[in-house]
This record gives sequence, structure tokens and C-alpha cells, in this order.
Amino acid sequence: MLNDLPALPNGARPIAIERADDPRIAAFRDIKERDLTGRHGKFIVEGTVVLRMLAAAHKTGSDFRAECILILKNRLAGVLDILSDFPADVPVYVAEAEVLDTIVGFHLHRGILALGVRVGSRERAQTIASLPETALVVAGCGLSNHDNMGAMFRNAAAFMADAVFLDATSCDPLYRKALRVSVGSVLSVPYHRGSDALSMLEALANEGFEIWSLSPAGKTEIRHIPPSPRMALVIGTEGEGLPPAVLSRFHSARIAQSPQLDSLNAGTASGLALYQMASAIGRI
Amino acid sequence: MLNDLPALPNGARPIAIERADDPRIAAFRDIKERDLTGRHGKFIVEGTVVLRMLAAAHKTGSDFRAECILILKNRLAGVLDILSDFPADVPVYVAEAEVLDTIVGFHLHRGILALGVRVGSRERAQTIASLPETALVVAGCGLSNHDNMGAMFRNAAAFMADAVFLDATSCDPLYRKALRVSVGSVLSVPYHRGSDALSMLEALANEGFEIWSLSPAGKTEIRHIPPSPRMALVIGTEGEGLPPAVLSRFHSARIAQSPQLDSLNAGTASGLALYQMASAIGRI
Repeated sequence: MLNDLPALPNGARPIAIERADDPRIAAFRDIKERDLTGRHGKFIVEGTVVLRMLAAAHKTGSDFRAECILILKNRLAGVLDILSDFPADVPVYVAEAEVLDTIVGFHLHRGILALGVRVGSRERAQTIASLPETALVVAGCGLSNHDNMGAMFRNAAAFMADAVFLDATSCDPLYRKALRVSVGSVLSVPYHRGSDALSMLEALANEGFEIWSLSPAGKTEIRHIPPSPRMALVIGTEGEGLPPAVLSRFHSARIAQSPQLDSLNAGTASGLALYQMASAIGRI
Repeated sequence: MLNDLPALPNGARPIAIERADDPRIAAFRDIKERDLTGRHGKFIVEGTVVLRMLAAAHKTGSDFRAECILILKNRLAGVLDILSDFPADVPVYVAEAEVLDTIVGFHLHRGILALGVRVGSRERAQTIASLPETALVVAGCGLSNHDNMGAMFRNAAAFMADAVFLDATSCDPLYRKALRVSVGSVLSVPYHRGSDALSMLEALANEGFEIWSLSPAGKTEIRHIPPSPRMALVIGTEGEGLPPAVLSRFHSARIAQSPQLDSLNAGTASGLALYQMASAIGRI
């Protein structure tokens, strides 16, 4: 029975969801299946860590907001502090495990979900113009793997990159798995997605960025990348790598490793290169 | 129809599997479900890259052998070169897509499987004794995540570590997902698993290893780890980290990063620390 739900610290009252077909929680239905389709700027948040990032997004004036929250009843008491960081007009739905599992289509042991929405978007030029004079950014070209996308954002946040730029062929970092693997960093690191790869890098070069493409065939080992006030690390797909037009037009960097292997995991590789660049400019 | 299978370059003749309940391929049945149970030294290999590593294991006198191979019919022609690297007495089974998918329990688009078996195992002392005078090793304590285990092996191979040591609470690196994420490195990097964590590290210290435990609270930033002829990097679980007894007894190292985050992904963190250590001793 859900009729004994306490009021939240922000004064809002949680709303009991007794049936899986309740239209108010339709956005959470079968989220695993629908993960592969675009969702018009809407995205699913899972777990307390990312929920906390979404709450923070409301306060920092970022591009993201919560539309509603769906919590397993026995997790409610444990997340009251996070819920009180949301505006009181964001509905908080509460369901028992059986109803929740039926809604989402699998056993959701963490029991913490939110529907987020992107409420603003910046043009590429605007995103570049907002960068500080000394800046470190990451550019992704053709990143189609959600794990690698999430890992790249997590590394960008860890090593204090100022922004991420993604070409139009890269996947949406708001996909459920990418967002989860990023541990919510997609909501905190400013990014722009949608450019043609070459024009995106040219635009950065025109604003004084030294462009370093990471590739197994790169010329400069990452420990020897010279520091410069504005640096961009370019990451390609794990399989095909970066297009020749990108590799030949800009600097290229490689990670020293055993000659018997082709390449590292793309997430690890982006972490290594970003760490070296952040280190070179004294950011970490 | 499968009655037109060509002989393999090594003279063996592929064996057609017409029914999913054929007892000869029982080991591949519902592999996803059985992934969570131990398999007495047997393991599942997926994809051409890892199959190639298994073929190499036969030649290098490693601890691993193939028991049998199961290939999707329309992939057979593309992997003849790899198959010819196996001894002719390793059965090669071939099935059409419908039969293969029924066997494994899901759509196996890569269509390349093998059943491997561990035929030998070394004691810990023996594994340590076989290390060169200048050595770099990785030690895992309580690593329960298959992804992180696989990533650690992949990094160990990339940065030319001589061996991996795992305590008894770490998961088996031969689990399907760990092996796949390692890109087969579990079959090429010598390892021992089963010790108590502290006794494992003491044994390495007794053989002249400087022990560096990686932790967000570590004392030495990884760029400042001094080189020594024998170095061991210790990796703990992502959540709980290393036990205090380990952290206080040996050196500890941290990775410089944004103060707003708790930690990097464990796979990425192991890659960063290993890269720095391999670099410090001039191995890469």
C-alpha cells in the first residue's frame, strides 16, 4: 500500500503509482527496448549519482532539467536529500518493486529513475566562444559505441576538459548507457554535437586550438605533446579510426604500447591522452 | 544444406551440426545464462581476434588449449587461415545461423565460438619465480567486475606487464565477458589467481617488488612513482577500494584529477597507472 507516503523536504508530495499502465509514467515504459531510438532531447537518468547531477543541473543553469522522477518505494527514504534539491513542481512518482519492474520491463534493482529533458542548446560557435583563453577540449568523430562515449565524458570531467565537441556521426551522449557510463558527466561537461568532423576541427583551429588526433599511427608520442594554451584531443572510432583527411590536416599523437597489439580500448586511450595533455598544461 | 563443407587447410574436415540438441556442441548451449557459474577451467572464446589468440596458445606452450570450435557456415571461408593454426584433431563444427542461434540462445552475429580449456596451472611461487629480473606486474584485489578484469588484462598486455596476480576474491578472468573485453589477453599474459591479498603482495615484496597500491587517497601522484627494477601495481574494486591493511603496508599512488569526482573507471585507472610505470622503467 502506498497511501502512507511522507511529504518531501521541499514540501512536494510523492505520487503513488499503483498500475504499470498509468499514463503519467509512460516515459519509463520498456526503457531498454526504446534505448536505440532518438527521444527528442529526452533522456533517462538511473541511480543516485546521476540523479544528483541532474539536480545540480537545475541550479547551475545548464541545458538540462528533470521532467519527473520515479522511485522504488523502499528507496524513497534514502534519497530524500537529493529529491529536495529539485524544484517542488517536478513530480516524484513512487511505486512498489513489482509495478516498477513491469513498467521498465526488467528488474531494476537500483530503483531510481528520472526523465530528463534538454531545455536549451547552444550553437557550435557559441560553445567555442564561451571557452576560456586557456582551454582543453575533446572532439569525438564517429563515436558510435555508447560505452566509449560515456567513458570519454567521464574522462573529460576527471581531467577538467572545458567542453566536448561531437560530429554528427557520433552517437547521442544522452543515450541511457552513455549517460550511465559517464556517471552523469554528460550533464556537467558542456558539449555540442552535430557538425561535420572536418569543419568542427577547422573551427577549433581557427580559434587558436592545436588539434591532436589520437591514432595508433600518430607521429608524436603523447608524453611529448608540447603544451599550448588551447589544445583539442580528437578521438575516432575504435575500429576504423580517424579519417585520413583529419589525420593529415592536423597533429597526430600515439600511445606507446606493445607492438603486438593494435590499440587500447577507446575509453582508456582517451583517458591516457587527456591525462597527458591536462598534465602538460598544468591543469592537474 | 551442410554436406558441401570443404576440408580445412590442415586436412581436417569440418563437422556439420544440423540440430541444436546435438550432444557434440552441448558446451555452447545457452552460454549467456551459464556465464555466471564456474566451468572447471573451461571457457568460451568469441570472435576472430580471441580465436587467433587461442590458436597461438597451442603453439607457445601456454596453459590453454581448444577443445572444439563452432563456426557459422557463412563465416567458415573467412577464418580458414586461423583454423589451420589449430591441431587437426580439434573438431571444427559448422552450423547454419538458425541452428547456431538456437544453440547459444541469442543471435550470435559474429558466428565464431570455441570451447577452451585450461590444461595446466602454475603455483604462485612458480609464477613469481619465472619473472625476469626487471619486471612489471599487476595485482588485482577483490576485482569482481568482469569488464574491469578484462580491461586490466588488456592494459597489462598493451603496456607489457610480465604477469597478473589475482587474489581469491577476484573473479575468474576466463569468464566469457572478461575474456572478450581483454581481447584475449587473458590467454597471453601469465597469471595466478587464488591467494589471500596480503600474502600475495608480501610474496611479491619478498622477491624485491616495490608495491604500489592505486587509490584516490594515494600519497604519490603516478607521474612521481620512482622507477625500480621490479614494480607491482595493485588495483582494488571500484567501489570499496583496497583494504586498509594493503594501503598502509605498501606504497600508495593516486591519479591527479578533478576534486569534484570520486574516481575514474577502474579499467582506465589501471591503464593510466600502468602506462606511467612502464614509461618510468623505459619499457614503452
